Amino acid sequence: MTIKISIDCMGGDHGPSVTIPAAISFLNRESDAELILVGLEDVLRAELKKHRAGDHPRITVLHASEQVLMDDPLEVALRRKKDSSMRVAIEQVKDGKAQACVSAGNTGALMAVSRYVLKTMAGVDRPAICGIMPNQKDGPTYVMDLGANVDCEPHHLHQFAIMGSVLVHAMEGIARPTIGLLNVGTEDIKGNEVVKATSALLQIDHERGKLNFHGNVEGNDIFKGTTDVVVCDGFVGNVALKAVEGVAGFFKMVLTTELKRNPITMLGAAIANSALKRIRQRLNPARYNGASLLGLRGLVFKSHGSAEAEAYEWAIRRAYDAAKNDVQQQLADLIAELMPRENTTIG
Amino acid sequence: MTIKISIDCMGGDHGPSVTIPAAISFLNRESDAELILVGLEDVLRAELKKHRAGDHPRITVLHASEQVLMDDPLEVALRRKKDSSMRVAIEQVKDGKAQACVSAGNTGALMAVSRYVLKTMAGVDRPAICGIMPNQKDGPTYVMDLGANVDCEPHHLHQFAIMGSVLVHAMEGIARPTIGLLNVGTEDIKGNEVVKATSALLQIDHERGKLNFHGNVEGNDIFKGTTDVVVCDGFVGNVALKAVEGVAGFFKMVLTTELKRNPITMLGAAIANSALKRIRQRLNPARYNGASLLGLRGLVFKSHGSAEAEAYEWAIRRAYDAAKNDVQQQLADLIAELMPRENTTIG
Repeated sequence: MTIKISIDCMGGDHGPSVTIPAAISFLNRESDAELILVGLEDVLRAELKKHRAGDHPRITVLHASEQVLMDDPLEVALRRKKDSSMRVAIEQVKDGKAQACVSAGNTGALMAVSRYVLKTMAGVDRPAICGIMPNQKDGPTYVMDLGANVDCEPHHLHQFAIMGSVLVHAMEGIARPTIGLLNVGTEDIKGNEVVKATSALLQIDHERGKLNFHGNVEGNDIFKGTTDVVVCDGFVGNVALKAVEGVAGFFKMVLTTELKRNPITMLGAAIANSALKRIRQRLNPARYNGASLLGLRGLVFKSHGSAEAEAYEWAIRRAYDAAKNDVQQQLADLIAELMPRENTTIG
Repeated sequence: MTIKISIDCMGGDHGPSVTIPAAISFLNRESDAELILVGLEDVLRAELKKHRAGDHPRITVLHASEQVLMDDPLEVALRRKKDSSMRVAIEQVKDGKAQACVSAGNTGALMAVSRYVLKTMAGVDRPAICGIMPNQKDGPTYVMDLGANVDCEPHHLHQFAIMGSVLVHAMEGIARPTIGLLNVGTEDIKGNEVVKATSALLQIDHERGKLNFHGNVEGNDIFKGTTDVVVCDGFVGNVALKAVEGVAGFFKMVLTTELKRNPITMLGAAIANSALKRIRQRLNPARYNGASLLGLRGLVFKSHGSAEAEAYEWAIRRAYDAAKNDVQQQLADLIAELMPRENTTIG
């Protein structure tokens, strides 16, 4: 079966100069994928031509006359730019023309427009953003929420845990993903009131055999890979994510500066080149690009705004994997089972 | 003037085998310092003798028959172990025999016993933990709270900002330290309700010329060094700190594994040794050891539980610098000015 993905080609810091090469490279690797490229038609066609893909059989170009800028207020993205590439790309999912959508646009706008166009999944109060970080077990740790919900109640965090568990199950093929609740200590008595109440909710699902709740985890457990999923509110998740990005940038800066300090250190670096290459590869943030907006009636993936083509391609790949593994139906099923407030349907 | 510091020599993962060599090394560098070493007298004297410091003129050994273990419940630390090395060391500050105290014991116990023995400073609702992290400007960023207060109101964060500002002023000699409020974005409209209300309080002090409030900062700004102080609640601060420790450990693991992979990479690493040495130095967590418990009627410093001697010495140094620069009086003065609820006195 063909997997169709719509792409907001104008979003992000670089626009088509990144999204188009990423799209072409992705198609070359996945023969059952088709892409709908959304944006200013002239610009997209020119960029495709530049990469000798002007008549690629698995690419459809869809014109959208407007563009959500990185600093556009939500209001503008939502109400004024009704023909933005972001919105048109999301509408492809709503209309069943694509199984997932990818954008590198402003996160707040992407979430707001996605909620407006796709609506929230039945049984879910608030969609959330699930991203991945590397761990010492050489696998990914899924962390959510990374910033969509800055004030959370226990039942929100509970839903994040369910959604994260489904995503890992579908994407990584892990039967019963372990779930950790991000806290300031691993003991049950630790944490604030919201976290303690969430822990009680997760414990119930664990005892019923519905979720594999590990208990509390701490910030360093993300990188130890203690659990497959780490659940937190969007304020904590966003701060942690950016702190980690900050320290990674700091580390890279120190490494580069010191290895280039003089001819001798440069010689050593040249000889140890294979190691440095592997280090760069293992620490490469591109590999971890592509966060899922979960809890909507359709799949939306967010690329980092500053992503280069390699990283952007990873975001497309995540959207493709999620569509292929039917994350959306699995989400609906488990949410309907564990949050039986109303009939769960996928829009 | 002599600066006297009391040291809980039994605290931490390693106890006297780390605290004693750190104490001796510190004294060798600071001729105006005197140390009160608290713990099991026999054990301490044996360790001192081992390091040929059995009769050091600036060391006093003070016997304490008990010891707070890393996993002792607060209740035990507070009510049962009244002759613990931690408590006796803190009592030296209360009794005016030491100007500051250092412990690597359990953070929760250290804060609880410190509050019990020293009491909270007038005008301060809740003491907090202020630690430092490295930044790209090669200076330290002071971050607080790192975990003492998991549920905070705006006036708590406001007080943390005041205390952080005083600490940076005294320790770094910066006239008007800049203060950032940790948030999920830099725009004023971002964040949860507590952060927005805190921002308004800090803005008032800024306009009165009392605090140098920069505005919102994000997780990566800690490492960019955007502001001298970063203020957050203890839940967020603790998660961020541990996430950063986690990713730093992950980097170190990858770097070491890859450079040792084969004879060629090892040769390259040997040639670039001076660079690797400088990298280790700049990223050395030992340099950033020693967090301040601020808002008590006396100075208490917390070393990382797993600190080795070099790191522990840094914690002693911070306590010494704080005492020498009269942080306690400066704190009392600014709190009295900005939080004029009652007369501020130092116990």
